[in-house]
Amino acid sequence: MALLYKADPVRGEHWQRLFAEHAPDIQWRAWPDIGDPREIRYLAAWQAPDDIQTLLPNLQVLFALSAGVDQLNLDRLPATLPVVRLLDPGITQGMCEYASFAVLGLHRDMLRYRQQQAQGNWQAHRLVPAQQRRVGVMGLGLQARQILATLQAFGFALSGWARSEHRIDGVTCFAGAEQLPAFLGQCDIVVCVLPLTEQTRGILDRSLFQHLPKGAALVNMGRGGHLVEADLLQALASGQLSAAVLDVLEQEPAPPDHPFWTHPQILLTPHIAAMTQPDSAFAGLLENIRRHQRGEPMLGCVDRARSY
Amino acid sequence: MALLYKADPVRGEHWQRLFAEHAPDIQWRAWPDIGDPREIRYLAAWQAPDDIQTLLPNLQVLFALSAGVDQLNLDRLPATLPVVRLLDPGITQGMCEYASFAVLGLHRDMLRYRQQQAQGNWQAHRLVPAQQRRVGVMGLGLQARQILATLQAFGFALSGWARSEHRIDGVTCFAGAEQLPAFLGQCDIVVCVLPLTEQTRGILDRSLFQHLPKGAALVNMGRGGHLVEADLLQALASGQLSAAVLDVLEQEPAPPDHPFWTHPQILLTPHIAAMTQPDSAFAGLLENIRRHQRGEPMLGCVDRARSY
Repeated sequence: MALLYKADPVRGEHWQRLFAEHAPDIQWRAWPDIGDPREIRYLAAWQAPDDIQTLLPNLQVLFALSAGVDQLNLDRLPATLPVVRLLDPGITQGMCEYASFAVLGLHRDMLRYRQQQAQGNWQAHRLVPAQQRRVGVMGLGLQARQILATLQAFGFALSGWARSEHRIDGVTCFAGAEQLPAFLGQCDIVVCVLPLTEQTRGILDRSLFQHLPKGAALVNMGRGGHLVEADLLQALASGQLSAAVLDVLEQEPAPPDHPFWTHPQILLTPHIAAMTQPDSAFAGLLENIRRHQRGEPMLGCVDRARSY
Repeated sequence: MALLYKADPVRGEHWQRLFAEHAPDIQWRAWPDIGDPREIRYLAAWQAPDDIQTLLPNLQVLFALSAGVDQLNLDRLPATLPVVRLLDPGITQGMCEYASFAVLGLHRDMLRYRQQQAQGNWQAHRLVPAQQRRVGVMGLGLQARQILATLQAFGFALSGWARSEHRIDGVTCFAGAEQLPAFLGQCDIVVCVLPLTEQTRGILDRSLFQHLPKGAALVNMGRGGHLVEADLLQALASGQLSAAVLDVLEQEPAPPDHPFWTHPQILLTPHIAAMTQPDSAFAGLLENIRRHQRGEPMLGCVDRARSY
């Protein structure tokens, strides 16, 4: 009974040590040295290999090494193969840190001050109390709810939007396509942590920006595929949006001539909002393996119908 | 019985409306139109006028329109004149926002990513869990304690240092000059919110930086006078410090040729961490006036012996 690991090799060594210490009954294999493929019951991967059924005939579970699973191309996986997301408290913590940094930075005009520093301009701007700053989060999953709880401590006026209805203390919740314009109309800062699905691809586009109050700001820490990059440039040029903090892009790394590198109203970071931390992720992964071995339901199973 | 206001005229109009509505018995005077100076019992000011005793012979209290009072030149004020600091929840909130933004930004390498963006470089760096990031706050007054409480939610390893001994849940407290090196030796990020006094002027100098772990980062949101600017440049050049976020400078605004404007390892903001908000500050100021009128002790009185 073996587990095949297929992701970053350096972090793989860390995972391997954790398995050796805490789960010596599970044989460790690291891609591409898969040994006898018939022995592999579990695959822990960032991206799945092609033709997974032929390659791993006895595979029972695919454990994604990420919270989002869009990079797995679910349509190409066997329909009956359980796919399980990584529930890593370390990822959630990273997302909360990044979201707080980005929202506080936009709230306090830090992209403008960054420009002013480059220009040698010492000029203060009006400070808006957090209670009057309306921050909306798109997506209301586990991470989004933790982000909202973190932002709540600063006193922001909070709202959230998701496909289905939610109730969260202190957060005005909106649901479904028909309530999206109402949600957007009251967001000074909008934070996208949606899963990337066919329904959400390209959702951050010109039409969405036009529903925001003029001068609103955007944080995208979902996936690059959520954002129509040309529409963002246009919205910044017209003043419809004032600033954006982006951790993800359609093409990563961004090509050298990408206009976001030098855009003064964009803070661009190289997909670092959160990284899987083997130390914090291991316990959750092992727990799910043990549940599977005991025939119990696993935590974080992907609903193949809705793709997340 | 009149109150003389001597600070920013635009915000003065806001203060005036609040007094007219909530304390019509107190006559409002705005510098320089002081009317009959003998009627003035209270002065609300950012900086005091020269020769205050001759100018305002019946002055009973000086209300500073700020949390720090170093800009008042206490030595030049009559020794018996009560000086009262502004206790504005809006200032504390602004300080917490700025400190959280700065600490999260340094924790997550944002000055490095800002440089990388300018260079078109998409490269991720190791993410240190907050639990392993040691953040120390210099000063343990009201604002510092609130900043520590805000940072606590992110899970940082927290410590604090002040002149006298303190006990704060979840914060390792150090006291006095003899414990300063031990405090510094365990700070990856150090945040200065000290009052500026003869004892703390120039405290952020070469000798202090050398007690920090190599590569530590600095946030100065106290006063420009705390920092020896040339020593910071040297510490950044040698690698002893990796980055600094500065909201205050010895000379404000910074002159056009100041080296901090263009320094890639320095984020410089124009003294905007917190601004007095008349709406949130008014209640505290009026409460103190009423206490004085009733002969009760006021809140936030400056200890003239220790200068804060």
